[in-house]
Amino acid sequence: MNSSHPYSRATYRLYDDKADFDKKAQGIAVGLTVGSWTELPEAAKEQMRKHLGQVVSVDVHDPEGAQPGERYADITIAYPDLNFSRDIPAFLVTAFGKLSMDGKIKLIDIEPSAEFLSAFPGPKFGVQGVRDLLGVRDRPLVMSIFKSVIGHDLANLREQFLQQALGGVDLIKDDEILFENPLTPLEKRVEACVSAAREAERTTGQKLIYFANLTGPTFELKANAKRAIAAGASGLLFNVLAYGFDALTELAKDPDIRVPIAAHPAMAGAFYPSAHYGISAPVLLGKLMRIAGADLSLFPSPYGSVVMPKAENLAVMNSLLSPELPQKPAFPVPSAGIHPGLVPLIMADFGPEVVVNAGGGVHGHPGGAAAGGRAFRQAVDAVKLGVPLEKYAESREELRIAIERWGVRTS
Amino acid sequence: MNSSHPYSRATYRLYDDKADFDKKAQGIAVGLTVGSWTELPEAAKEQMRKHLGQVVSVDVHDPEGAQPGERYADITIAYPDLNFSRDIPAFLVTAFGKLSMDGKIKLIDIEPSAEFLSAFPGPKFGVQGVRDLLGVRDRPLVMSIFKSVIGHDLANLREQFLQQALGGVDLIKDDEILFENPLTPLEKRVEACVSAAREAERTTGQKLIYFANLTGPTFELKANAKRAIAAGASGLLFNVLAYGFDALTELAKDPDIRVPIAAHPAMAGAFYPSAHYGISAPVLLGKLMRIAGADLSLFPSPYGSVVMPKAENLAVMNSLLSPELPQKPAFPVPSAGIHPGLVPLIMADFGPEVVVNAGGGVHGHPGGAAAGGRAFRQAVDAVKLGVPLEKYAESREELRIAIERWGVRTS
Repeated sequence: MNSSHPYSRATYRLYDDKADFDKKAQGIAVGLTVGSWTELPEAAKEQMRKHLGQVVSVDVHDPEGAQPGERYADITIAYPDLNFSRDIPAFLVTAFGKLSMDGKIKLIDIEPSAEFLSAFPGPKFGVQGVRDLLGVRDRPLVMSIFKSVIGHDLANLREQFLQQALGGVDLIKDDEILFENPLTPLEKRVEACVSAAREAERTTGQKLIYFANLTGPTFELKANAKRAIAAGASGLLFNVLAYGFDALTELAKDPDIRVPIAAHPAMAGAFYPSAHYGISAPVLLGKLMRIAGADLSLFPSPYGSVVMPKAENLAVMNSLLSPELPQKPAFPVPSAGIHPGLVPLIMADFGPEVVVNAGGGVHGHPGGAAAGGRAFRQAVDAVKLGVPLEKYAESREELRIAIERWGVRTS
Repeated sequence: MNSSHPYSRATYRLYDDKADFDKKAQGIAVGLTVGSWTELPEAAKEQMRKHLGQVVSVDVHDPEGAQPGERYADITIAYPDLNFSRDIPAFLVTAFGKLSMDGKIKLIDIEPSAEFLSAFPGPKFGVQGVRDLLGVRDRPLVMSIFKSVIGHDLANLREQFLQQALGGVDLIKDDEILFENPLTPLEKRVEACVSAAREAERTTGQKLIYFANLTGPTFELKANAKRAIAAGASGLLFNVLAYGFDALTELAKDPDIRVPIAAHPAMAGAFYPSAHYGISAPVLLGKLMRIAGADLSLFPSPYGSVVMPKAENLAVMNSLLSPELPQKPAFPVPSAGIHPGLVPLIMADFGPEVVVNAGGGVHGHPGGAAAGGRAFRQAVDAVKLGVPLEKYAESREELRIAIERWGVRTS
């Protein structure tokens, strides 16, 4: 490989019972870059060599007695950065555009060059920045989401917000399916929720970030983001995969959008769960979200009914937090099925840099959403203090009731 | 269902060996709309009913003696249009956002309401409009793509363009992996290719559309499109899935973008090939592309090495051409592995409204790209006249040589 030019790598898993994987890898390296190679005259080769993809490795898994469908190879190709512009669509179209349709092939890792990555400021806030905004440095954050939003009016949404906020959660986000609508239009919704946040703050004494759902036509996203922020939104929720990673990149880059962005994984299930096709969760919801600039990335927790296996969850977490990327670390937000009795397990699985995110686990508390939020905060405190949840709950009503309702899960 | 409010439908295939599919369907209809239902007080139900999703049908496939993994149901849900704004991201996030991550589930059809569809002008040109631009009304169109583009300079690209154009093809498109680059920047590339098109026109006497690859940051796409058009581009190629369907919608809506748009399927293989996950090809590359405004939609042909099964190909074609949608029909462009000997089969499979699109089948002609283009046009003429290809080739050198090279495939 020519050391004077940077290369960005992609790793694929290809299933094929018979393929010559070395030949296949060469075909990818040539076909997705210069198009043809061996038949080129020497002079042309000289000129084209810096544009030619390189096979980095071909790792064939073909165990003795492999059944049909079990043989695969992990193939890593290095693509010259010279060939594509400094944006995620260009990299993805190069590395997994046509190739995505070429048999049983899944994009399982990416390693963009330092040069490519340098074009991406990434999260404006990241883990530390979000902590700084809240003034919370020594515990996982607690996020809650609305119980139901469609068909509700401003007064109802405000009351839902207030109850969540009174429980002491750090982050509240809109539902991702709440779009511009006559009952709760963006600016009025933000104003109502921000006023509820202020009201709660007088009781709790703590700060709170409200992530308003950023929706609408692509070319109006920046304007809508700025309208939400002008109305008081202290964060934005964004359905990244419905708009493409570059929209997130550009929003995060905008100097006037000075609030954290939480990336919702809506539609991610169309990409990551198949063994044979698509894009792996750590690439999709980890590396790409962070490079593009998500301050928080939501993904299905391994605990609920909408499930991603734990190993994959931890790989997503690692992609979001790892020091290997120059972009600021982003908060992993394992979501769905979370109740206070899971907090010890979440903190054991994910460590300290995690957002405990709950919907039903807050609103379903028999004492209401405020009690639900308090139960989560109490659970976090118990783990921090090294006290078993049940013991800590003896003197904490909300946690005790939550444990009665949902139990404690230790594995 | 409340007849005074429109509903948009989505159909899913869910694989599950044990699930109560009726219960699952109810869960989707409630969960993705009002959130909860049975526990609501009657007064609230009255108010919320118009926002509640409806189960249209649950069609369980559970044959006698079904093996594990074979049991599935096709479930159709009607979502009230009241719940989402008139854009594709809102509809997809509603109907297949969170749900995409909920087990083995694939979005296999959509049926947006007439009201929703009325917000989408769709293709500006469509099949008839593209034919009108070219003045070609009585035969399939022939499209060719560059042989290789990366690392080539303007003179080389111009010469490649000229040779293709001299063969009498109707459409020439950039390679989808050609991004903004110092050797062949957008405007200079367009100018060079347009001058080659004019030169060829003096020989062939026929018009030609050049689809320049539209790339770059999301929020600069419109400006880049207009730059390309100002430089003379008579069409745009767009990697829709890398930017999201709404970017296409907005580009196609723009009154200043008065050229046809060809949708490239780059990354589509991350969505459609799995039986268990993702979005089916007729939805992804058919209905959604057409609703969003693609005048042409490319997809992997059933004939080449990058393959989509023929039944799926024809379903994509049907989605692009069917009179069921109010948007203009869009040209199906089955791509990859196409040579002149396939033309009778393509025309038999797809009928008259198809674009015969070739790369290697043009450039790989022993007589060069111009001869390759002529061979395709001769093959189309032969089929139109009802003359067997081999017979027609007796007096057509280029077609004869193409058949020697690639043969004739009749099934």
